[in-house]
Amino acid sequence: MIADPSSKYQRFTGVSLPDRQWPGKTIEKPPVWMSTDLRDGNQALIDPMSVQTKLRFFKELVAIGFKEIEIGFPSASDSEFEFTRLLIEGNHIPEDVTIEVLTQARHELIARTIESLKGARRVILHLYNPLAPSFRRIVYNTDKTGVKNIAMQGTRWVKELTAQAPDTEWVYQYSPEMFSSTEIEFAKEVCDAVTEIWQPTPEKKMIFNLPATIEMSTPNTYADQIEWMHRNLNNRESIILSVHPHNDRGTAVAAAELAVMAGADRVEGCLFGNGERTGNVDLLTLALNLYSQGINPALDFTDIDRIRKLYEECTQLPVHPRHPYAGELVFTAFSGSHQDAIKKGFAVQQKNAIWEVPYLPIDPADLNRSYDAVVRVNSQSGKGGVSFLLQQQSGLQLPRRLQIEFSGIVQKVSDTRGREVKSADIAALFEQEYFAVDAPYKYQSNKISEDAESIDIVIQLEKEQKIVALSGRGNGPIDATAHAVSQHLGKTVTVIDYHEHAITEGSDSVAVCYVELKIDQGKAVFGAGKDKNIVAAAIKALLNGVNRYPA
Amino acid sequence: MIADPSSKYQRFTGVSLPDRQWPGKTIEKPPVWMSTDLRDGNQALIDPMSVQTKLRFFKELVAIGFKEIEIGFPSASDSEFEFTRLLIEGNHIPEDVTIEVLTQARHELIARTIESLKGARRVILHLYNPLAPSFRRIVYNTDKTGVKNIAMQGTRWVKELTAQAPDTEWVYQYSPEMFSSTEIEFAKEVCDAVTEIWQPTPEKKMIFNLPATIEMSTPNTYADQIEWMHRNLNNRESIILSVHPHNDRGTAVAAAELAVMAGADRVEGCLFGNGERTGNVDLLTLALNLYSQGINPALDFTDIDRIRKLYEECTQLPVHPRHPYAGELVFTAFSGSHQDAIKKGFAVQQKNAIWEVPYLPIDPADLNRSYDAVVRVNSQSGKGGVSFLLQQQSGLQLPRRLQIEFSGIVQKVSDTRGREVKSADIAALFEQEYFAVDAPYKYQSNKISEDAESIDIVIQLEKEQKIVALSGRGNGPIDATAHAVSQHLGKTVTVIDYHEHAITEGSDSVAVCYVELKIDQGKAVFGAGKDKNIVAAAIKALLNGVNRYPA
Repeated sequence: MIADPSSKYQRFTGVSLPDRQWPGKTIEKPPVWMSTDLRDGNQALIDPMSVQTKLRFFKELVAIGFKEIEIGFPSASDSEFEFTRLLIEGNHIPEDVTIEVLTQARHELIARTIESLKGARRVILHLYNPLAPSFRRIVYNTDKTGVKNIAMQGTRWVKELTAQAPDTEWVYQYSPEMFSSTEIEFAKEVCDAVTEIWQPTPEKKMIFNLPATIEMSTPNTYADQIEWMHRNLNNRESIILSVHPHNDRGTAVAAAELAVMAGADRVEGCLFGNGERTGNVDLLTLALNLYSQGINPALDFTDIDRIRKLYEECTQLPVHPRHPYAGELVFTAFSGSHQDAIKKGFAVQQKNAIWEVPYLPIDPADLNRSYDAVVRVNSQSGKGGVSFLLQQQSGLQLPRRLQIEFSGIVQKVSDTRGREVKSADIAALFEQEYFAVDAPYKYQSNKISEDAESIDIVIQLEKEQKIVALSGRGNGPIDATAHAVSQHLGKTVTVIDYHEHAITEGSDSVAVCYVELKIDQGKAVFGAGKDKNIVAAAIKALLNGVNRYPA
Repeated sequence: MIADPSSKYQRFTGVSLPDRQWPGKTIEKPPVWMSTDLRDGNQALIDPMSVQTKLRFFKELVAIGFKEIEIGFPSASDSEFEFTRLLIEGNHIPEDVTIEVLTQARHELIARTIESLKGARRVILHLYNPLAPSFRRIVYNTDKTGVKNIAMQGTRWVKELTAQAPDTEWVYQYSPEMFSSTEIEFAKEVCDAVTEIWQPTPEKKMIFNLPATIEMSTPNTYADQIEWMHRNLNNRESIILSVHPHNDRGTAVAAAELAVMAGADRVEGCLFGNGERTGNVDLLTLALNLYSQGINPALDFTDIDRIRKLYEECTQLPVHPRHPYAGELVFTAFSGSHQDAIKKGFAVQQKNAIWEVPYLPIDPADLNRSYDAVVRVNSQSGKGGVSFLLQQQSGLQLPRRLQIEFSGIVQKVSDTRGREVKSADIAALFEQEYFAVDAPYKYQSNKISEDAESIDIVIQLEKEQKIVALSGRGNGPIDATAHAVSQHLGKTVTVIDYHEHAITEGSDSVAVCYVELKIDQGKAVFGAGKDKNIVAAAIKALLNGVNRYPA
C-alpha cells in the first residue's frame, strides 16, 4: 500500500441535497425490471453466448416474467443482427414483452439498428453517449458542448429514422453515460435538451436511464443524485426514470434499492449480477428482497435451481456458494445453536402463517429448494458438499455428471436414515455403489496384443461362478473392451466419456477410472474401477457400469 | 411463487428516526476492524479449518494489519481450546494484536474460556445471548425479563471470573444477538443494564456489538437503528459501538458503510464475506472502498492475489470472478469501447497524479495485480481464462497445477508479442510446448506382459535417430515406464500425479494424459501425451515430461 493513498485517490462528492426525502421512504411496489443479460451481461463473458444460447436464455427471461429485455447491439456485429432477426422472424417475442436494443449516436449505426428490427411490434431504442469530464478530456478531446451535441444529434436522427418505420411502436431511451461521475447540472441540461427534441408526453413517455457506470461512493450518494434528477428534470411526468447500477464497491443492490426510494421507476440489471467487471446489479436478489418484505416482485424465481443451472451453463460463470437466495450454502446452518433454533422454528411454523423461522429470512420451499441442506449440517449440501467430502476422505475426484448422479444416491440414503451422512458414510456409500458391484461380471485379467492399426484384447471374467473370456478389437483398451462386451451382450455399449486419475501421490499409487456409458439407446450410467494398473482400472470401470445398468 | 406473498412475509420496520443525521455524513477515517474469519467464518465451512490451517490464516490476518482477531469459541471443543493455547504458548500474538473469544452466558463455559486464555496479554471476552421476540418465544420459551437476566448474570460472572485472572488485560464485549430484529428500546435497556454492572469508563471502554444476525431490510434501516443506539445508549463515551452485518439481502457492505456514518466505531466481518449462510460483511471490499476515496484503511491488501489464494486454500471456498477488487475478471474490460477508453486513460495517466483511468476505479498495480487482464480482452485473464479457452478450443481439461504452469507460458509469449493471444494461439502453444516435444525420446511402441504380481513393459523409442528399447517392471504401465526410464537415465523419475481424460465423446476418441514428475529431487514438471490408446498416451506423457525437463 502506498504511504499516502490520498495522494492518488480522492473522495467522490455527489450532489448536495440536505433536504433529501428518500431515507424516510419505503419501497411500496416493484420497479419496472429491465434485463440486460443478453447485452451488458453477454458482452462481459470470456466466451460470449452463441445465437442459440442467447435464444435459450431469452426464453428463460420471458418465463421469469421480464417484460423488457435488452437483446443486444444489432449494429455492432453480424451475430447480434442475426439474433435480432431470429427473435422477430421466429416469433419468439410474446405480445407483452418489449425488446430493447443499444446503439451509439451515429447515423449509419442507428439506420442499421432500425433495419434489424423490421417487423417488431414494439421496441425500446436505447442511445447512449459518455458525458463525464474524464471522457470529454481523455477519450474524446472535446468539451461540454461537444458531447451535448452528440446526444442532441443522435436523438434527432432516431426521431427522423424511426418516423420512416411506423409499423413498429418506438420507445426512446437515452443514457447519459457515466452519469454517476458527470456534473449533475450538466447531466440534467443534456437530458432536458433531449426531451425538448423527442417531445415525450405522459401518454407516450420516454426513458432516461442514469447509469452508475462505475460505482463511485457509498450508495446514499447515488440515491441523492437520483432524487436530485427526479426533482429537477423537466417534464418529469413524461419521463420513466431508470437506473443502471454497477457493483464496483459491492453495493449495487443497495444503490438500486435506495434509488427506487429516491424516485426511480425502473431498474436495469442482470441475473446473478453479471456484467462488465464486477457486474451489474443482481435482479434476482433485488426481486427476492422485495418478496421477503411481502411485496410481489412480479418476477417468478420459484424454481431457482433451474434458473441457476441455466445461468451457469449459458455464461460459464459460477454462482457463488454464498450468493443470496441461490447459493449452495445460504440455507445451510453449520452452527449447532443455529441448527437447533431452526428446528424449533420449523416445529412451530404454521402453514400459511407469517414466516418466522430463526436464521432463515425466506422459506426455502418458496424457491423450490429443499430443507435438507438446512438440517443436514457440515455433511452435505448438494453435490458440492458431497464431492468435497468424498475427495477429502478418499481422494476421489468425480467428474461433474457423476457428482450429480452420486449426490442423488447420497440424498436418498440420507432421507431414508433420517440423520446426517458423514464423510466416512459417503465414502462407504461410493465404495458399495460403484467399486463393490461385481455381478454379473467380475474382472480377473486381460491380455493385449497390438499391431500398427489397433489392439486386440482378451478379458477374462467371472460370471455366475464360471470363467468367461471375451475378445474385442479397437483403437485402445477402452474401445476394445467396449467392443468385447458389446459382442458378448449382443447390444452396443457406447463409452460417452471417461476420466482417470491417481489417488495417492507417487507412481505406485492406485488409478481410479470413471466411465460414462450407454447400452443401445438407454440412459447414460456411470461405472468406476480402481486398480494399480490404469488399463485394469478402465476395464473394471466399464464392467462396473454394465453391472450397474438398469436391466 | 405463491399468489399473495404478503400473506406469508411482512415488511420489516426498524425504528422511526425522522431527524436522522447519517445521510449527510461521510466516512472520514477507518473504523476499528475486527476479523471474525477464525470464528464466524470458520464455523460456516463445509470442512472447518485444522489447528495448523487456522494458525496459517491467523498469521496472514496479522500481516494484513488486523489488531483485533476473534480466534474461536474455546469452551466449545477441544480443538478450539487447543488453538487458543497454541497461539499463546507459541508466542504467535504480536504485542499490538488483541485476540477475541466468544462464549455463551453460562458459568462453566465462561470459566473454561478464561482457563484457555491463561498467559494472554490482552483479550476481548465476547459474550452474547439472543434477545429477539422470535427467539424468546420459539427457542427459549421465556420473556424479556428472562433474556435480560441472562445478559446481566453472564456479565456478573465475567466480571467475577476475570477479576481472578488479573495477569491478563480484559476488555468486555457484549452482543445483543439478533439486534436487528429486537425491539430497539429493549436492546438499549439490556445494554444499559450490562453497562451498569460492568462499569466501563472513557479510559477503559467496553464494546457493544450490534449484529444484523439476519439482514432484515434495506441498509438505511440498519443505519437508523445504529444511529438511534448511538444517540440513546447510556454512558456512550465509555462505549465502543461495533456492528456485525450479515449479507442475507446482498447489502452488508452498504449496511456497514451507512452504520459507520451513523456512529459505529468498529466493524466485525470476514475476508471475502465468509460466514454463516450468505456470510458476514466483506472486510476486504469495505477497506478498499475507503482506499479508493483517499482514506488509508490501515489494512494492507497490496498483494491481493496472495491473500485470495490463501483464503481459497484455507476455506475451500472460491472467490467469485466478479468479486470487487479481487475477482479474476474485475480489471478486465471485454467491450471494445471500454478497452479503447482504458488505453487512452493509461496513456495520459501521470505517475502519482490523481487516478483517473476510465472504467478502472482503482489502479490494479496498487493491489499487485497486472494490467495484462485489462488490455488482453476476451482472450485470457489468468489461468482461468487460458484454461477455459483451451478447453473450448481443444477439449483439453488441464489439472490445476498444469493450468498454472501453462498460463505462465502463455503470459510470457503474450508479453513478447505485445498483442492479444487468441484461443487458436493458445491451443497451438499448448501443442508446441507439450505434445510436439519428442526429443531426445520419441515413443514408438510398447509391449506389456503381466503376471499376478506386477507387469513388465518394453518400450521402443527413437533417440537421436537410433532405436532404443527400455525395460521396466511395476504395478502398472506408468509405474513400469517410470522404472524403465529411471534405469535408462540412472536417475529416479517419480510420478507425482497424473490425470487422463477423453477428448471427444465416444469410445474411439483420443485419450490425453497429463503426468507431473520429478527427476531425483528436482523441480516438478508436467508432461502431456495423447493417443487412441490410454497406455500409449501415458507413456508419451511421461517421456514428454522427461524431454521437457530442465537439464
